[in-house]
Amino acid sequence: MHPITKRILSGDVRAAARAITWIEDDFPDKAQILREIYPHTGKAILIGFTGSPGAGKSSLVDALLTFLRAESLTVGVVAVDPTSPFTGGALLGDRVRMQHHAPDPGVFIRSMGTRGNLGGLSRHTKEAVRILDAYGCDVVIIETVGVGQTELDIMKAADTTLVVLNPGGGDSVQAFKAGIMEIADLFVINKSDIPGVQKLEIEVEQMLDLVKHDATWRPPIIKTIATEQKGMQELWQEIKRHTNHLRASGEGEERKVYRMRQEVTELVNQQLYNLLLQRLQEEAFASDIEEAVDRQIDPYAVAERMVRQLIKQESESS
Amino acid sequence: MHPITKRILSGDVRAAARAITWIEDDFPDKAQILREIYPHTGKAILIGFTGSPGAGKSSLVDALLTFLRAESLTVGVVAVDPTSPFTGGALLGDRVRMQHHAPDPGVFIRSMGTRGNLGGLSRHTKEAVRILDAYGCDVVIIETVGVGQTELDIMKAADTTLVVLNPGGGDSVQAFKAGIMEIADLFVINKSDIPGVQKLEIEVEQMLDLVKHDATWRPPIIKTIATEQKGMQELWQEIKRHTNHLRASGEGEERKVYRMRQEVTELVNQQLYNLLLQRLQEEAFASDIEEAVDRQIDPYAVAERMVRQLIKQESESS
Repeated sequence: MHPITKRILSGDVRAAARAITWIEDDFPDKAQILREIYPHTGKAILIGFTGSPGAGKSSLVDALLTFLRAESLTVGVVAVDPTSPFTGGALLGDRVRMQHHAPDPGVFIRSMGTRGNLGGLSRHTKEAVRILDAYGCDVVIIETVGVGQTELDIMKAADTTLVVLNPGGGDSVQAFKAGIMEIADLFVINKSDIPGVQKLEIEVEQMLDLVKHDATWRPPIIKTIATEQKGMQELWQEIKRHTNHLRASGEGEERKVYRMRQEVTELVNQQLYNLLLQRLQEEAFASDIEEAVDRQIDPYAVAERMVRQLIKQESESS
Repeated sequence: MHPITKRILSGDVRAAARAITWIEDDFPDKAQILREIYPHTGKAILIGFTGSPGAGKSSLVDALLTFLRAESLTVGVVAVDPTSPFTGGALLGDRVRMQHHAPDPGVFIRSMGTRGNLGGLSRHTKEAVRILDAYGCDVVIIETVGVGQTELDIMKAADTTLVVLNPGGGDSVQAFKAGIMEIADLFVINKSDIPGVQKLEIEVEQMLDLVKHDATWRPPIIKTIATEQKGMQELWQEIKRHTNHLRASGEGEERKVYRMRQEVTELVNQQLYNLLLQRLQEEAFASDIEEAVDRQIDPYAVAERMVRQLIKQESESS
């Protein structure tokens, strides 16, 4: 067993932090660690927070954190910003939160940015969540900044997805992408002390009437005022009710199977691509390319030949 | 030989149009047609037009079209809008141009949009260009609307890339992504009769001093007024000078090899992914996934097993 794995499983916070850094750097040891911790995962409740900027997601996550700590639950937060190259707690919001919760060993907060590689962000986030799960967090919160495709993809790592709305932000529900309505398990109207709440509530209900969703779960709308710590009890109860629904209805198992299929497909794709990259270095390939440029052969034939050779050579070497 | 291939090679415009529709629809026959036309491609000059919206790209393309037709050259235009789901000449600008050039059999204009699938757009564009090349266009113009990643990728299909700037649009060259500077072979300041031309020209020259480019080719700046058909002679001369530079310096060959490597890699990836999709349907995979969800095995082990099986089964069946 890798020494870092052992330390993560014994609840060493610095080991968890290091493992996440290795994940972001695609450091070779990460593969071993991820395999070793895997049997120890699946215990945490994974909650996703998304919504348009300015809706108060960060304050809401902070308020829920405070509530959950009062309930003696340990919480991990992975804050993902696909537009930011900064990682490791460098976001402003996190610094504020860090100051707030820093002395508390039951809280683990981590920011993740792109480091210029958007493709890896979604995978890295899922891997970081797994580390926090194995490390022993009772709840792991995944928070994203925007509502784009990457964010939707990241949200698929959560068991329960919350969409945070802002009555004062001119947040028309119609303005949301269709994808957002489909992934929402709960809606939160934050800043529910400012005008526009009732209008927004009616809009959400109307959208829910239109959008197809699970027959046995209609996403509830919870009103909160994060800055005053209001609505947290109800929010947590609704999250737990959804957790129970996932278990009882079989929907949770279905989602897990779907996500596992996705994950394995991506891993296989990655491995095949790595095999391909090796072949691309070979002499024979370079001369095929020259011939294709000179139109003695077509690129489709070169590709077919390459797939055949790749399969032949790999089968002989194994 | 596919009947459509035969018709394209004999210069049948409706066959070319149908082939492009089949390309967009990923209709099975397209593979055979693309293979069959490939030896007949490589004759057309491929020109890319990009630049920020409002710079007058469409007017410029239209003016160049008129100029080239007066020179008795046949021209194909592929207008690509990654933000539009519309295809087949449905864009407003194209309708106008269509009316202008419609009775002229030496002009072929085609719009391409996403049809909701951004990933395929770049490939489809390159395939459409190949059809127009085989069909017999002397010049093929690839026009994109924006300056995002997809547009940059599409521009890689061109031999000569023009970046169109607008002195009145507050177009600060600094505002452009770095990628734009690197792909530009020629700059065009269109609407060069309005104020701001000299300032913009100086800015471009300063950027060119900073950005690394081919030692033997410094991108020239050409001033045009597309709506008055001004500057077209000089523009065309600079394009031809660049074509000669590509040939003489070996840069053209290098670019072709680079593009071919990219194309073949994408084709191989696609083929491997198709093999993978077949395996995903199998019983054995479903039970592996169940085991992984139950944490009896980890997803990394499932992926490895799958790669091994895929290679084994493919090598036995071939």
